[in-house]
Amino acid sequence: MELITADDVRAAETRLQGQVVRTPLTAGPPDGPPFLLKPESLQPTGAFKLRGATNAVALLDGAQRGTGVVTHSSGNHGQALAYAAARHGVPCTVVVPEGSPKVKVDRIRAFGARVVTVPPDQREATARGLRENEGLALIPPFDDPRVIAGQGTVGLEILEQSPEVRTIVVPVGGGGLASGVATAARTVRPHHVRVVGVEPELAADAAESLRTGSLVTWPPERTGRTMADGVRVCLSERTFAHLRARLDEIVTVTEEEIAHAVATLAHGSRLVTEPSGALAAAAVLTGRVATAPGRPEETVAIVSGGNVDPEVFARLVA
Amino acid sequence: MELITADDVRAAETRLQGQVVRTPLTAGPPDGPPFLLKPESLQPTGAFKLRGATNAVALLDGAQRGTGVVTHSSGNHGQALAYAAARHGVPCTVVVPEGSPKVKVDRIRAFGARVVTVPPDQREATARGLRENEGLALIPPFDDPRVIAGQGTVGLEILEQSPEVRTIVVPVGGGGLASGVATAARTVRPHHVRVVGVEPELAADAAESLRTGSLVTWPPERTGRTMADGVRVCLSERTFAHLRARLDEIVTVTEEEIAHAVATLAHGSRLVTEPSGALAAAAVLTGRVATAPGRPEETVAIVSGGNVDPEVFARLVA
Repeated sequence: MELITADDVRAAETRLQGQVVRTPLTAGPPDGPPFLLKPESLQPTGAFKLRGATNAVALLDGAQRGTGVVTHSSGNHGQALAYAAARHGVPCTVVVPEGSPKVKVDRIRAFGARVVTVPPDQREATARGLRENEGLALIPPFDDPRVIAGQGTVGLEILEQSPEVRTIVVPVGGGGLASGVATAARTVRPHHVRVVGVEPELAADAAESLRTGSLVTWPPERTGRTMADGVRVCLSERTFAHLRARLDEIVTVTEEEIAHAVATLAHGSRLVTEPSGALAAAAVLTGRVATAPGRPEETVAIVSGGNVDPEVFARLVA
Repeated sequence: MELITADDVRAAETRLQGQVVRTPLTAGPPDGPPFLLKPESLQPTGAFKLRGATNAVALLDGAQRGTGVVTHSSGNHGQALAYAAARHGVPCTVVVPEGSPKVKVDRIRAFGARVVTVPPDQREATARGLRENEGLALIPPFDDPRVIAGQGTVGLEILEQSPEVRTIVVPVGGGGLASGVATAARTVRPHHVRVVGVEPELAADAAESLRTGSLVTWPPERTGRTMADGVRVCLSERTFAHLRARLDEIVTVTEEEIAHAVATLAHGSRLVTEPSGALAAAAVLTGRVATAPGRPEETVAIVSGGNVDPEVFARLVA
């Protein structure tokens, strides 16, 4: 399995200029461990996914642009691809699993994309079918070098914005963001920056895969138990290969810790996050990832997204 | 009354580099008028006030740095001065009015400042007393050229980040932010950018002053009726002079509109704002400030702060 390189990430960064928000580093919540946040929740579609989707769309050839793109997604990648495709004038179809948060599906439609709803275990097959039958270019949510390179730009920006960073903490679902960020950190500053992945205890397939050294997948009914709906998916062979080679460590957090992190980021750092988006901060807040006393700039937790159902958010911050 | 100049704001911008967050422009809520947000709620102290306070502290001479600074503030300026002073190793005293939100006072103390609590109508006299008796340098929340110049950097950044901006919408309390932003916009792009101020209907002293052409102040028991606690103060002669010369228009919003804007910014733009911080967005969401169809980059609403009591915020987003 060929891994992407830091040059792929740098090329993506050039392509993304003016297309995505260069999110700042902001202060972690007071009264806890010292760390900074990288709030990707502030992207126009509310999640880092816009980076990978935009990079992939920018790399389409002329014929593919005319025919259109298709993807399967629990929501954030679907929104991102719909937004990126619309900006480039490319038709877009998004296959979403039944049970996706309504707020995400509504916004995919608002960006002008066609939405096809199927049972969770049929979404990949449906997307592949649309590729075969309609000639659409399939842009998967994470199992794609163009997408991984785009997500890696989050890591490049952190290295530029905080030259003193020693630890980057990143949520792991399909592993696209973690693969891209670990690639950026490992190859740009090989000996100085640790990249730590975070999963919910209830969807810890990547932790098990990395511990055992071979890719395991957990069935949807098992990962479906976590409230962090953005990370219920499992690694692919491609992201597993990246993480095995480049991720330094992976830790898990409980549902209670995730819920607490959503509330703490709202009240302490003024950010609205979805449960998946609060995973990395949860790992720091619980001390599962060590910080440097008095030096918040050394630890950066990526806030991956903020597309939370309003009712869920209101309950978590009450 | 001598007004500050664009050069004062540019000098402040240089002084603030690396000291405050360069907040990005982010997307306004979907399904409403097209506009962008400038989320100053993401400053480490949760409000734009850090800019003016940092500029003022950076301009102190050596003797003043040793003796320390004092201010009176409803909270956000107090936090900002405490933070800026701590970073520069300067002792800080903050006089706060009784009834200030607890979250704000707690954080002032957490930054290492001495807190003196007095009835609202005694705060300025108490601060002046500390200046006389202890030799502290008084850094008021808005009636100060150094502070106004610092706040104006919000406007300079908007001009740089969105060259196509035509309208900047800014909340008005004491008028420091609006004075600084209007100075930046009017003198950098005199004919192309309109600056519109926003007040709560229940604390519309600036609107009345500008309409009548002479400075009026509303008593605390009158402005105290608005939930937007950050803008219960009135203009000074200095900020009135700036706004009369440089602000294009001022509009008001109701309490219900402010509350709705807090919820809409949370659910639609993933930002936690305090009621004062949502004023400018409220004016755009209600159509009281016109937007350009399909061109969100032409209208920017400043989100001035996010230090909201957790219970109040939970109620507003429920």
